[in-house]
Amino acid sequence: MTQREAALKGNITEAMARVARDEGRSAEEIRVGLAQGTIAIPLNPLHKNCRPVGIGQELRTKVNANIGTSVDFPHVADELIKLKAALDARTDAVMDLSTGGDIMAIRRRIIAECPVTLGTVPIYQAVAEKKMTADGMFSVVEEQAKDGVDFMTIHCGVTFETIGRLKKQPRLMEVVSRGGALLMKWILDNKEENPFYAQFDRLLEIAGKYDITLSLGDGMRPGSIVDAGDQAQIQELVVLGDLTKRAWEAGVQVIIEGPGHVPYDQIESQIKMQKEVCKGAPFYVLGPLPTDVAPGYDHITSAIGGTLAASAGADFLCYVTPTEHLGLPEAEDVKAGVIASRIAAHCADIVKKVPGAKNWDIEMSKARKELNWGKQIALAIDPVRAKEIHQRRIGTRDDGRGTVDVCSMCGEFCAMKVSTEALGRRS
Amino acid sequence: MTQREAALKGNITEAMARVARDEGRSAEEIRVGLAQGTIAIPLNPLHKNCRPVGIGQELRTKVNANIGTSVDFPHVADELIKLKAALDARTDAVMDLSTGGDIMAIRRRIIAECPVTLGTVPIYQAVAEKKMTADGMFSVVEEQAKDGVDFMTIHCGVTFETIGRLKKQPRLMEVVSRGGALLMKWILDNKEENPFYAQFDRLLEIAGKYDITLSLGDGMRPGSIVDAGDQAQIQELVVLGDLTKRAWEAGVQVIIEGPGHVPYDQIESQIKMQKEVCKGAPFYVLGPLPTDVAPGYDHITSAIGGTLAASAGADFLCYVTPTEHLGLPEAEDVKAGVIASRIAAHCADIVKKVPGAKNWDIEMSKARKELNWGKQIALAIDPVRAKEIHQRRIGTRDDGRGTVDVCSMCGEFCAMKVSTEALGRRS
Repeated sequence: MTQREAALKGNITEAMARVARDEGRSAEEIRVGLAQGTIAIPLNPLHKNCRPVGIGQELRTKVNANIGTSVDFPHVADELIKLKAALDARTDAVMDLSTGGDIMAIRRRIIAECPVTLGTVPIYQAVAEKKMTADGMFSVVEEQAKDGVDFMTIHCGVTFETIGRLKKQPRLMEVVSRGGALLMKWILDNKEENPFYAQFDRLLEIAGKYDITLSLGDGMRPGSIVDAGDQAQIQELVVLGDLTKRAWEAGVQVIIEGPGHVPYDQIESQIKMQKEVCKGAPFYVLGPLPTDVAPGYDHITSAIGGTLAASAGADFLCYVTPTEHLGLPEAEDVKAGVIASRIAAHCADIVKKVPGAKNWDIEMSKARKELNWGKQIALAIDPVRAKEIHQRRIGTRDDGRGTVDVCSMCGEFCAMKVSTEALGRRS
Repeated sequence: MTQREAALKGNITEAMARVARDEGRSAEEIRVGLAQGTIAIPLNPLHKNCRPVGIGQELRTKVNANIGTSVDFPHVADELIKLKAALDARTDAVMDLSTGGDIMAIRRRIIAECPVTLGTVPIYQAVAEKKMTADGMFSVVEEQAKDGVDFMTIHCGVTFETIGRLKKQPRLMEVVSRGGALLMKWILDNKEENPFYAQFDRLLEIAGKYDITLSLGDGMRPGSIVDAGDQAQIQELVVLGDLTKRAWEAGVQVIIEGPGHVPYDQIESQIKMQKEVCKGAPFYVLGPLPTDVAPGYDHITSAIGGTLAASAGADFLCYVTPTEHLGLPEAEDVKAGVIASRIAAHCADIVKKVPGAKNWDIEMSKARKELNWGKQIALAIDPVRAKEIHQRRIGTRDDGRGTVDVCSMCGEFCAMKVSTEALGRRS
């Protein structure tokens, strides 16, 4: 029985109870969310030792880190280092997007060492292993399900209809989703409908059997801010809305993937439109990036767009690293990406009134007021970096004494110290 | 004659003409903005070789970088390196916030090497040099004006009345503005009104004489998200609204400073309220930071808040560096701060429909579609970093060949390449 089927029957599973505890909600609230489809718990029973995580409405905004080999960098050892970096930075989910080397072996190693929910994009393996027939694609999906993959991105909405919209209203950037581009090419080359759309029931059967959460991919996501919200993108979303309903009816959990490159003033409306069209299914956004001009800093651009998206209702932020648009990330980039997305998620969680979110800020502010450096560092989103910077810039006066209670920016000009003294309310 | 007086008389100055050219506006539009007070050109004629910059409504969002010594790091050489880092990263303005060493000598060195508009906070020097009498404070303001300072942060709104509000509705973080805290302490210690408020006309006289733009400081800005929008903050803003009108009547240009730590969903309304209360005066925000928990990454937190603030109408973003709340920044931190703020400013400029803003994104997207790496790097907000990442991750295959046209993330899975081929529209 899938988590969704259990929820529909009124059963509270161990995973639901665990998510409820982590979120400060009741188990019944989580069950209702699963039954309504507004919450997903991507959890393949074959992924042993996976800590269940809830993604969706009224829950803490979650963060995903993409890792995986490429043809140029095919070594699993590098990816295990990146997995550790992502986990150390406290990512909520990991996707293995390997496209180089022995993809199956790499995936198995990663899953074995991954205690958080894990996703894949099966089409990458199908292409790499030249299994680009309908049967080949479904065989890869089932193979990955058997390995314990918890959620899979499947670009079911890339169809003759959406491609037709793309041709009718050409874009600056065409298709920037890898999976979307590969499936579009297959459809056009073979003059045959997308098997994941044409045989969607076959996909649902595998997903139901292994309790795979379907992450319905946005193959038509805009790759330039000027392409955002065009016919192809919206057409695909409409298709995904239909498929969401069919998946739910089959007892399969669904997440919807979203843009992409989107101007800042279109982000809120895009999120609200998705929530409407897909009946409140959890929304998983890549960025969004409100500008195209900052390669090298797209973790920041993504945090800017991600905060607005999550504040408007997005539930799951796929990180973007500083190497996006330039090359495959390394471990330090993975860390930077996770932290930037966690900042975005937390800023939004304060807006969403997620239980406990604001309390973290209150504790930090108290530690600042008390000039309690140990507590400030312990509470920091990245204590290692906070400590490193603070230590590096502890000043040494001409008399050899460093500042003690204050920091090297203000020294005795410390506003906290001056104002607390002035108001005579020393804490 | 000040820039404002010239504008009111219908004269177009050389500075207005230069700003108009830089902004793609007519000189008359700039003149009208100055006359209405919605645009400021902070430009002290004694700051030789300063390139005039316009700050305000319908103009490109500008970025300021704070540099300056502290008691712990009092050396001018370090600050000149930071000045260069800020200029290389293309900051629009610099503030010298020195509080350590020979403040006057340091300021003169910085002004001599600074081709962009330069601001200070005179109260820091007054405190450091023990000139904390009304006459002492004004003498420092005039000394700095004679040195060529273009704009000065003066915390005129820290008064008995605002301090009364602070006492009536206590905060978690009291006063986190250094200037605000120092003036509050002085007012309470001396039982005397803030000279910059009580003798505001005296301040206007100096400002008018040297054409100093007054940046009316927000001494009561919130230092924790839970303190945002309280009585003290709003009371101060009301006072600043009054003083704005008086300054304009005296021919003096005004900028209003704003928060600070503000929850994401309060930022837009705070900006709109300021614009209303201060009759459209240019708004200069520090951050805002929508969370308190990310020391070490507050350049990112600031970019998140700054994008929303600027999209809602803020005109001038004061950068925040990764070392904020931890210590004095170094050159690399200055660069990180300027770039993060420039990303925020640009994302907002797309929303504001600033002439030419979106075109930058279009050019970048075209370069991406063409897989033209040289052009992508040249167009990047930081070409040095973009190139470094791209080069670092150029892959080497087993056959020793690196990827050529595609990058190491996707290799032959490159969506651009696949979709362009599929659609048969190779550019």
